[in-house]
Amino acid sequence: MGDRHFFNLYDASRGIARTLSEGLETRIFPGENVMLSVVRIAANRSGEIHSHPQEQWGVLLEGSGVRIQDGVEHAVSVGDFWQTPGGVPHGFRAGSSGALVLDIFSPPRDEYRRPGAGFAAGE
Amino acid sequence: MGDRHFFNLYDASRGIARTLSEGLETRIFPGENVMLSVVRIAANRSGEIHSHPQEQWGVLLEGSGVRIQDGVEHAVSVGDFWQTPGGVPHGFRAGSSGALVLDIFSPPRDEYRRPGAGFAAGE
Repeated sequence: MGDRHFFNLYDASRGIARTLSEGLETRIFPGENVMLSVVRIAANRSGEIHSHPQEQWGVLLEGSGVRIQDGVEHAVSVGDFWQTPGGVPHGFRAGSSGALVLDIFSPPRDEYRRPGAGFAAGE
Repeated sequence: MGDRHFFNLYDASRGIARTLSEGLETRIFPGENVMLSVVRIAANRSGEIHSHPQEQWGVLLEGSGVRIQDGVEHAVSVGDFWQTPGGVPHGFRAGSSGALVLDIFSPPRDEYRRPGAGFAAGE
């Protein structure tokens, strides 16, 4: 097994690039049962509330922000992580220094297997 | 949806405690399709090489170490992450300042749903 299974959060040359919305740039790493997405959110930017059937977890790696889940706002800081069951509406608003979030999807979101733009979600 | 879906990497009061081996302490967070495990590895400690059918990803959050996969040693530093397909033998040896690793399993490892000790793996 070679280096093709090894990546770095800060290496923007790897992964599948996707602009989720203005100021939300991600690199996506598909696995067999899991898909990782390294999301860089610019200061004070937010992604629209949306949902999808896949379970999702998020880990706040840098910065701060507000995680909105099921209509409730949760202030989060570095080290916080959260589970978002499938179908639950969610979004994120970055704080004044932006945010770096690791998102984890299972099963993988097929619509994220190719470069593109948008959340590609129903809601 | 309340705070029961929100956690912190550094809050040792949450998650299911498991000692993988001497100097490898983890807190496990089971989801529906994904299981997260926050592993604190003491300086220079290593876990035995083992394997399991579940896909695994790891993210090095603090410290340094060597990820051993399929017999190959990969030196890793903060921000590195890796995929370990199911069935691939793997282990980790922490550097001189220890390591904090986020492990991601899918599907969840049923044997990690309860407190215990050991890797609970076949190899």
